Amino acid sequence: MYSFKNDYSEGAHKRILDAMIKSNMEQTDGYGTDDYCLKAAEYIKNKMDYNDADVHFLVGGTQTNLTAISSFLKPYEAAIAVSTGHINTHETGAIEATGHKVISAADTYDGKLQACHIEKVLAEHTDEHMVKPKLVYISNPTEIGTIYSKSELKSLSDCCRKHNLFLYLDGARLASALCADGNDIALSDYPRLCDAFYIGGTKCGALMGEALVICNNSLKEDFRYNIKNKGALFAKGRLLGIQFLELFKDNLYFELGDFSNKMAKKLKDGITKAGYKFMIDSDTNQIFPIFPNDIVKKISNNYNYTLWKKEDENNSVLRLVTSWATDETEVENFIEFLNNL
Amino acid sequence: MYSFKNDYSEGAHKRILDAMIKSNMEQTDGYGTDDYCLKAAEYIKNKMDYNDADVHFLVGGTQTNLTAISSFLKPYEAAIAVSTGHINTHETGAIEATGHKVISAADTYDGKLQACHIEKVLAEHTDEHMVKPKLVYISNPTEIGTIYSKSELKSLSDCCRKHNLFLYLDGARLASALCADGNDIALSDYPRLCDAFYIGGTKCGALMGEALVICNNSLKEDFRYNIKNKGALFAKGRLLGIQFLELFKDNLYFELGDFSNKMAKKLKDGITKAGYKFMIDSDTNQIFPIFPNDIVKKISNNYNYTLWKKEDENNSVLRLVTSWATDETEVENFIEFLNNL
Amino acid sequence: MYSFKNDYSEGAHKRILDAMIKSNMEQTDGYGTDDYCLKAAEYIKNKMDYNDADVHFLVGGTQTNLTAISSFLKPYEAAIAVSTGHINTHETGAIEATGHKVISAADTYDGKLQACHIEKVLAEHTDEHMVKPKLVYISNPTEIGTIYSKSELKSLSDCCRKHNLFLYLDGARLASALCADGNDIALSDYPRLCDAFYIGGTKCGALMGEALVICNNSLKEDFRYNIKNKGALFAKGRLLGIQFLELFKDNLYFELGDFSNKMAKKLKDGITKAGYKFMIDSDTNQIFPIFPNDIVKKISNNYNYTLWKKEDENNSVLRLVTSWATDETEVENFIEFLNNL
Amino acid sequence: MYSFKNDYSEGAHKRILDAMIKSNMEQTDGYGTDDYCLKAAEYIKNKMDYNDADVHFLVGGTQTNLTAISSFLKPYEAAIAVSTGHINTHETGAIEATGHKVISAADTYDGKLQACHIEKVLAEHTDEHMVKPKLVYISNPTEIGTIYSKSELKSLSDCCRKHNLFLYLDGARLASALCADGNDIALSDYPRLCDAFYIGGTKCGALMGEALVICNNSLKEDFRYNIKNKGALFAKGRLLGIQFLELFKDNLYFELGDFSNKMAKKLKDGITKAGYKFMIDSDTNQIFPIFPNDIVKKISNNYNYTLWKKEDENNSVLRLVTSWATDETEVENFIEFLNNL
Repeated sequence: MYSFKNDYSEGAHKRILDAMIKSNMEQTDGYGTDDYCLKAAEYIKNKMDYNDADVHFLVGGTQTNLTAISSFLKPYEAAIAVSTGHINTHETGAIEATGHKVISAADTYDGKLQACHIEKVLAEHTDEHMVKPKLVYISNPTEIGTIYSKSELKSLSDCCRKHNLFLYLDGARLASALCADGNDIALSDYPRLCDAFYIGGTKCGALMGEALVICNNSLKEDFRYNIKNKGALFAKGRLLGIQFLELFKDNLYFELGDFSNKMAKKLKDGITKAGYKFMIDSDTNQIFPIFPNDIVKKISNNYNYTLWKKEDENNSVLRLVTSWATDETEVENFIEFLNNL
Repeated sequence: MYSFKNDYSEGAHKRILDAMIKSNMEQTDGYGTDDYCLKAAEYIKNKMDYNDADVHFLVGGTQTNLTAISSFLKPYEAAIAVSTGHINTHETGAIEATGHKVISAADTYDGKLQACHIEKVLAEHTDEHMVKPKLVYISNPTEIGTIYSKSELKSLSDCCRKHNLFLYLDGARLASALCADGNDIALSDYPRLCDAFYIGGTKCGALMGEALVICNNSLKEDFRYNIKNKGALFAKGRLLGIQFLELFKDNLYFELGDFSNKMAKKLKDGITKAGYKFMIDSDTNQIFPIFPNDIVKKISNNYNYTLWKKEDENNSVLRLVTSWATDETEVENFIEFLNNL
Repeated sequence: MYSFKNDYSEGAHKRILDAMIKSNMEQTDGYGTDDYCLKAAEYIKNKMDYNDADVHFLVGGTQTNLTAISSFLKPYEAAIAVSTGHINTHETGAIEATGHKVISAADTYDGKLQACHIEKVLAEHTDEHMVKPKLVYISNPTEIGTIYSKSELKSLSDCCRKHNLFLYLDGARLASALCADGNDIALSDYPRLCDAFYIGGTKCGALMGEALVICNNSLKEDFRYNIKNKGALFAKGRLLGIQFLELFKDNLYFELGDFSNKMAKKLKDGITKAGYKFMIDSDTNQIFPIFPNDIVKKISNNYNYTLWKKEDENNSVLRLVTSWATDETEVENFIEFLNNL
Repeated sequence: MYSFKNDYSEGAHKRILDAMIKSNMEQTDGYGTDDYCLKAAEYIKNKMDYNDADVHFLVGGTQTNLTAISSFLKPYEAAIAVSTGHINTHETGAIEATGHKVISAADTYDGKLQACHIEKVLAEHTDEHMVKPKLVYISNPTEIGTIYSKSELKSLSDCCRKHNLFLYLDGARLASALCADGNDIALSDYPRLCDAFYIGGTKCGALMGEALVICNNSLKEDFRYNIKNKGALFAKGRLLGIQFLELFKDNLYFELGDFSNKMAKKLKDGITKAGYKFMIDSDTNQIFPIFPNDIVKKISNNYNYTLWKKEDENNSVLRLVTSWATDETEVENFIEFLNNL
């Protein structure tokens, strides 16, 4: 059975694997202090056209979120997120485990946070009997595949600066956002609009790894202590450096994002032509078609996917995910399969 | 410059790398629920001749220690360790970050904990104004390369059972302990004597990965929730499964441990013949020769190593570490280099 | 200016103060191990007609909530509350500071949680990528003065037992709930329906103090360690014992609850007669009248109160609170004042 | 049986109790924002001749320590203390429960920390694989009744400033230290030499309460949020204000400290004359006589005390504590009792 279940079903892109194989017997220092990591950080800063940032490589997304957020906040400070935000729902309380409340600011149709949601939270949190909202968490793409426009991100960034909040962006699938149709946020915009954000590797072609970019100077000090304190300082750190070096030494990261989006687009077009609708319009590598339950049953016999939610008595929303590794023939097969039902 | 600095300077053993390459484009479920992980767990249980254990694969040692210990203890319970214990000194307060005190029970010459140290701690912690010691942390080999004998481990285990304490063993370099000259603890003894322990991969031939073995039934429930809660649930979990499967499907794990010990032995013999002494007698892959400072200076120009401590005004203790990847010619070169000084 | 702002504006009921004065120079053991505490616990158990409970005396409500909940839950487990629940909004993230998520289960008109809200949360939390809901938090009265009926509480209790959840009840104002018109939950029902709950002293006539009652045997062990671990073990613990002994050696606790309700009723009747409505119908010592803003302004010049929220452009909801200490003449004056506006 | 077990066996000094009785029916705002608290803070600042400090009133010592230290430190930072430091041994891991390691810096004969101990810890903690020592914890008097000289405290303070560490002083029994024979540290020295410290009330004549004084501006911001976050914001906060106001509006605090020391001196002199020695020479309200075990047995039948430790096979060290409430006749009786043995 072919799987459209997620974008971490396979290993790594061939070029990344080759780079790891090639360097395998080299001796390097541990914990991310090696030349590969240094060089990868330089490449990323060059691609961002932004030099005044610290880049740290961590293994996974939840790990990156909890290490960063717990480092940035004082004990009584809280993060703001939409109700569907990954840290709010799908990280098993990892942020709270470090002592911080995640404030669910809004239940939005498109999974996006707006400045007005932040303002509302601030208006409700006025004294020391409540947590102090201090960090705004968003992801791009969102949990449901939508993307922020540059003006939307700028508006959030302005709101944060006005209210002395940190803007933190989870870029687990940033490659897909960067290459989406309609995207107008360049990689170089992120360090200018966010206080910190991470460039996802795990879901964008690497075996594992996320590149955390800290732009706000006040958040940089001693960050490696935080990484170790959370058990996230990776012994053979160069493995992360090698992968990000490969992704950013030319345009591989963007090519992989583009490819995954193209595969999703192809799926989306096929499904649309076959007469089905979607829960939400997404231009990234996650799409959410609505199928009648009997069709779902037949799909289940042939494909892996995620059942997102019940739309109504007779219909269900599925999540289908493509990636750098998606087999285009399988995409075509799926559409054909659907048309033959 | 050749490096004897640590056992995580290189990538992975060729067979492990090959297995990863071979499976690279296979689609599997994420987060360690794939067949590779299941099979690797089976292999490990078979090698231990012990079926009633849960095996979880995590990425790194500190991560494994903090996830396990924080899961096993109630908020007011503490871990007991020797002063040099890894959790006490070299994990940046990772255990304390989860809320638990590490009690430094003894400052021992050989880095080993004894039942009498535990008894002393228990005698000093008698009521609710002090933490309740509940878990005993040891590593084998210890931080300074020594190993426990079976009777020593049994004595600790008996003491723990008598006092209703958990015995947790950090096996970051377990391969080396298992294959050390003079070792009489079989892999099959560990699940019988410990409540939980981990079999290290990172320092024993894998790219990364530790196999946590939970033997005590009362510690098993919902453990995957704990892993995720600590940001340690690895998305492409199959990468850990593949590596441990390769290490345990035959005797590779033991062969690598044996090889690293042999290289250390060769170094040790050469250094001894050259007329130098050691801080401690170690049969594993870490050795601690004492050199005059002028010799150290010359070594520094040609080799990477860790300066362990000053022995006195004129002499220093170095830590030299070998591994599965150590180049035997380099070992011979080092000895020749030393003899030529 | 007379204050209807809260029920902790004054010190303690005269009988309580007298008991403290009388015992002032007696020597007792510290930390709640004295005879006053033991006897007070006995009186409470007698009044509950329930002997198999542990009673611990703590200083304040947030302290009691965080000590209890953090003790009852494993690291990845979460508490369920309504959105207005005290632990969710007015404890500055105290529960999260101990590592646990508070799940906001519902936004209810009457501030009450229902079994269906719990069921919905459980249905949404199905695997280790999400926290595990394990404890249900309610307060009686609720944050807006409403009370649960016995059948409502029984339904919650049944739901919790069915799903293996702990039911924890915050009784900061339990005296008022116990004596409310329409209340049909006896004190003896609480230990039978809850796993743990606390009987509030601070807001019910004592200088300070809350009596935590742990009924579920599995939650009792080593609880005093948790109290100390959270900095909540009170040195002169007998001060809490003396106060609860006085409250429960006869019916003082109930008399004070009854009096505070009567004062609220008198206020409510007067306000109603004066032609005003209420945000919610409350039979306890907190009432929420809606006044035009110009009336509010005049009240502000003469009385202290809490501005609860804006009802609309022209009207505001006020919170008026009465207590054991409320001066009946001042209640009458307020009504007269209102009628004269 | 008369008790020399501790200095919190009785209630409060009569003047304090009277002040509480007198104000009992006054209405004030909650949570320490009332005029009593404001005035008490002013009195304390006047007595310290130091205006640029924030004064917060908390209920107990462990609570104050954990709230302050967890507020002052970043997640990976640690506190330094002597092995016998209260936070290291007698607070049930309360500091670790907030995420921070307590580094046991030295095992000293007199219970005092020295700059050299701090320097040693700093020398051992050099990179991100270890916690970052950031706060020095001392108490005056120490756990065994000894006091720091001004030059000793100055030396610690200089060392902390040199290394950018916070100096935090636990003054649970500060009244006794301030009035000890040989003391040369004035109350006005504390805010000048420490970054924060607390003036103990619980053990110095109050029912409860500690006045935390924060002198370092960088530690002041939002501190009330921390207090609430730790469940330590006391509802009827004015009770703490009233007590400290009474203690500091004239010299009551010093008189009580002086009295408790005089009672200890009288005990010490009598015990010395009776031919017994002491574990340590203390000028404060805790003394540590060494008695033969048969004498201890007889004392046990007539007095409450703390068995501190076994001196040897035949002798034991007792801790005897006096206080503002000690009955001088009982002191005389004890000496007579001892002489009659």
